[in-house]
Amino acid sequence: MTEDEKWMAIALGLAKEAMEEEEVPVGAVIVQNGTIIGRGRNQKEKGKNPLYHAEIMAIEEACKALGGWRLIGSTMYVTLEPCPMCAGAIISARLPYLVIGADDPKMGGCGSVVNICQNEGFNHEVDITRGVLAEESTALLQTFFQGLRVRMKEKAKKRKEAAQ
Amino acid sequence: MTEDEKWMAIALGLAKEAMEEEEVPVGAVIVQNGTIIGRGRNQKEKGKNPLYHAEIMAIEEACKALGGWRLIGSTMYVTLEPCPMCAGAIISARLPYLVIGADDPKMGGCGSVVNICQNEGFNHEVDITRGVLAEESTALLQTFFQGLRVRMKEKAKKRKEAAQ
Repeated sequence: MTEDEKWMAIALGLAKEAMEEEEVPVGAVIVQNGTIIGRGRNQKEKGKNPLYHAEIMAIEEACKALGGWRLIGSTMYVTLEPCPMCAGAIISARLPYLVIGADDPKMGGCGSVVNICQNEGFNHEVDITRGVLAEESTALLQTFFQGLRVRMKEKAKKRKEAAQ
Repeated sequence: MTEDEKWMAIALGLAKEAMEEEEVPVGAVIVQNGTIIGRGRNQKEKGKNPLYHAEIMAIEEACKALGGWRLIGSTMYVTLEPCPMCAGAIISARLPYLVIGADDPKMGGCGSVVNICQNEGFNHEVDITRGVLAEESTALLQTFFQGLRVRMKEKAKKRKEAAQ
């Protein structure tokens, strides 16, 4: 297991925790000098907040740990390519390194739909490594969305039965 | 004064509050059915948090007010074009309407550098009105940055004197 895979496995553990809470399974950790300074998992539904993505939660915790908003010298490991909001938060926090699990062709803000993190127009560019434990991350997301479809069908069936 | 100008004037008031706290003067309000449900001003430096932009603070407050993450039927008024993070937060919250004061050629995420809010690649597009009280917003930002340059020069002078 490489160093990147070691930290990504911890992020995947957080993604699994999100899934247990019926949230889209995405997890993130921020590492500085070999220590985790921020952890996050997606909590958008339970938290009733559109900002509660894994990356945002991890940045929030890391800033509190460091006592400032510049996450210089830190690396974020995240199981799914950040959306534009999270990619924007990463450049706002001046995070220099980003390691991504699976790409997100629908909402990806780091190259898949737009590229916020590597855009010469902005005052900060991020060094990105992709595809670390990507299969594990994709498998987790697929399991979640299959389960979600089953849950939604069951709900629809119950609603139909109750209406009859 | 138009309806848009009325709400933007309140956002400008919040921007002025930010300036009094030596923060880049940006303010935002979220309005639903003629009532303000979220207010925010930039607090990045004092809050030591890269997420504390005016729009994020306003979204946070509005979600608490509504008890959910979908800001359907709401309009955000913000004195400066949202950055990619805030533009991403606006689509994450499904905000349908956005009214912008001044454009931001350096960090604008709604057309100036990238366009997050009106991008067919994403699952949500925002209806944008631009240039509402833009001159007032620009004047405020110019005053802030002129003051900042003076403060930085004074600090450098003091450091030089102390070193001699």
